[in-house]
Amino acid sequence: MPNILLQNATIVTLNDSDDILTEASLAISDDRIAAIGETPADFRPDEVIDLSGKIVTPGLYNAHTHAAMVFSRGYAEDMPLDRWFNEGVWKLESALTPEMVRWGVRLAMIEMIRGGVIGFADHYFYMDEVAQAVIESGMRANLAWAVFGHEGGEVGVTVPETVDFVRRYSGAANGRLRAMFGPHSPYLCSDEFLARTAAVAVREGIGIHIHAAETAGQVEASLAEYDMTPIELLHDRGLFETHTIVAHAIHSNPIDIAILASSDVNVAHCPSTHLRYAMGVTPVPEMLAEGVNVALGTDGAGSSVAYNLWREMRLAVVMQRQARNDPEALGGLTPLRMAARNGARALNFRESGVLAPGYQADLIVIDAAQPHYQPVHSVAAALVWSTEPADVQDVMVAGRWLMRDRRLLTLNEAEILERFDEALAEMMAKPLAQFKKYEVDESGSEIDHKF
Amino acid sequence: MPNILLQNATIVTLNDSDDILTEASLAISDDRIAAIGETPADFRPDEVIDLSGKIVTPGLYNAHTHAAMVFSRGYAEDMPLDRWFNEGVWKLESALTPEMVRWGVRLAMIEMIRGGVIGFADHYFYMDEVAQAVIESGMRANLAWAVFGHEGGEVGVTVPETVDFVRRYSGAANGRLRAMFGPHSPYLCSDEFLARTAAVAVREGIGIHIHAAETAGQVEASLAEYDMTPIELLHDRGLFETHTIVAHAIHSNPIDIAILASSDVNVAHCPSTHLRYAMGVTPVPEMLAEGVNVALGTDGAGSSVAYNLWREMRLAVVMQRQARNDPEALGGLTPLRMAARNGARALNFRESGVLAPGYQADLIVIDAAQPHYQPVHSVAAALVWSTEPADVQDVMVAGRWLMRDRRLLTLNEAEILERFDEALAEMMAKPLAQFKKYEVDESGSEIDHKF
Repeated sequence: MPNILLQNATIVTLNDSDDILTEASLAISDDRIAAIGETPADFRPDEVIDLSGKIVTPGLYNAHTHAAMVFSRGYAEDMPLDRWFNEGVWKLESALTPEMVRWGVRLAMIEMIRGGVIGFADHYFYMDEVAQAVIESGMRANLAWAVFGHEGGEVGVTVPETVDFVRRYSGAANGRLRAMFGPHSPYLCSDEFLARTAAVAVREGIGIHIHAAETAGQVEASLAEYDMTPIELLHDRGLFETHTIVAHAIHSNPIDIAILASSDVNVAHCPSTHLRYAMGVTPVPEMLAEGVNVALGTDGAGSSVAYNLWREMRLAVVMQRQARNDPEALGGLTPLRMAARNGARALNFRESGVLAPGYQADLIVIDAAQPHYQPVHSVAAALVWSTEPADVQDVMVAGRWLMRDRRLLTLNEAEILERFDEALAEMMAKPLAQFKKYEVDESGSEIDHKF
Repeated sequence: MPNILLQNATIVTLNDSDDILTEASLAISDDRIAAIGETPADFRPDEVIDLSGKIVTPGLYNAHTHAAMVFSRGYAEDMPLDRWFNEGVWKLESALTPEMVRWGVRLAMIEMIRGGVIGFADHYFYMDEVAQAVIESGMRANLAWAVFGHEGGEVGVTVPETVDFVRRYSGAANGRLRAMFGPHSPYLCSDEFLARTAAVAVREGIGIHIHAAETAGQVEASLAEYDMTPIELLHDRGLFETHTIVAHAIHSNPIDIAILASSDVNVAHCPSTHLRYAMGVTPVPEMLAEGVNVALGTDGAGSSVAYNLWREMRLAVVMQRQARNDPEALGGLTPLRMAARNGARALNFRESGVLAPGYQADLIVIDAAQPHYQPVHSVAAALVWSTEPADVQDVMVAGRWLMRDRRLLTLNEAEILERFDEALAEMMAKPLAQFKKYEVDESGSEIDHKF
């Protein structure tokens, strides 16, 4: 790949001292950052790009999603979570096809790349389709095939097949792709199954991506059954002995937070979904203060509608300011750090998420010369509070441009939109059944959840 | 002006039955909507525009802003409101110039038009500059010259001059411009001054735009001084006897809400500012249920950063869902109705805000054919949860295009950006003084506020 020199940019490094460089250069050699700040005299660029008025930051990570679920965008709005499952998502998913995942995930990747997202942690079905799409797109990903831990009732996959899936894709695409285990959650998997998953994961060095502590009712049910919170249960059954992403963890108490911190667990915080379905306020400032790596996710489009990490950053801030009546909560670059650096760490891409020599050339360019950014008194405020997906001009992963001047270079938008429509029409023509049961009793506790 | 026919559009009317028409036409004759749904046989269009895949809605209104304050964007972040005033806005405003307002408001109008905002209720200084800008831009506006009610301490204007201002501009620009009184607030104006303003307003048929009930401390101080809440005081002193916009009204109790409803007061709700500075949760659902006309505003860029009404819609929803743990709060088209129809009513443009025959041709076109909208299971969800400013393709006010295919037709972006930079540099070169004092004691109550 050519040597590339970016010049005259404002560079937000997200390094340990949160350095922001102005009128600065960034030299890229092959898949890595060769220099930053000043250009070494011996660097011979094949291409020089002027970025006056532009801001360069590390690329964003979507730390928890079910990307292909774009098919459910706007399908079940303005209702409690149990109705959302039963009348919405699980009804649609009874008709799920591999083709729907194939084209759904590609449509999702268009939206993510166009909004500056360079990698995502996916938790879904037909994950071979997703893996192929990631390889083609040039994005980074953690892929987990969702399993419920009861043989015979899976969506197109058995537990041993998920192990094969992990072995097949671990480290694929020059390390851009990582495969991991995806036991759904402590409320939909037996604790024996969770323990078995953890044992295999630790033995084989495989990560785990799981949902937990989404509702107060789940915590109550876990305490009743195990005398442990969901976080305590996952810890007790060994799931935190490997690299783990816990999606949500909304209802975490101080002991849960201490466990998450000491076990180096990554929390994927999904503000759009949590707020839209009134699921509660995650103690994010306490988690960050205790050293928990909190990243941001969009969850699936059925609950968030948009795969827009800029929106998730802002919602993460305002929900804390409202909940604790504190106008200083999560200020400055904190939201961007969660979306980029913490996201890279959550997905275990340790050479991404920071702009520094030797790190992967994983970056995005924001067009902050536009009217709605002026004047830029604060680069942090401009990034966090002015930026929308359409302001992302260029996206680079491992030294390769995935988007230049808003034009996608790895995905064919027109074809994907057409194929997506065909796959959706085919799915919607099928009779929709009640795929899973997920009910709550009047107190808000889930019942009948070990179907 | 030519007859224009829009065809094959999804049309969100915001009429009383919230009709959404598909594959529909909209005929425009001069400044009005001639027909909607089907085209009359005798309509002779000069131009036919195909809007397949596009959504047409009434244009949005920004019901409370200080538009020219773009100069303070990002200047005072992540701090309590008293520091925001003293260390931020009031310091900058000590150096305010007419040129800063001239180019600031134009920069703000670029951002607003590009985001689908067709009108704004402005409350600021040097309002002749703003009036000229509104006339040129083709937007609609309510303009109020902010006054504090103590002679000799004004920013470039005396109280009698604001009366002249109102007489000069009322009904200007074919009725697109309305001028009104702008007493700042019950906490910065004496009650005698408020009563005098109300008397003149009622006698002359002039509206009033005022801030009130922004903080719990303001309510406490008002109760201590008057034995009335700020809303009760405004009502008692006669300010609700004319067309009135009350910005914020966050801390409104049920009696306040009953007064606002029975007095036909318009409330401008500003979620970005309220959330970012942790000012409290306005009882919006209760206000709407009681019949209060609640519209949405961005406030100034110093507190909101962005003039993005789509963001305000979403934040209005999520803050209620979080506060009352209710995933059904403000669902469906409610947020759009607040931003468009309620906004038009708040600004007293009674022939705007609804798409129906005989109404003004005030509309925007959203490009919902883009990947991040697909699929559109719900038009309401697509509008409220997928739309960002950049998705607004066309903007029309009174039958005149202000933007077509993202190109502004009434404002010169390059010149405005250049002049804005010059005006800002001139302002920032001046010594910044402490312009006003606004302090809070330890209990959160404002002190020394009648400076």
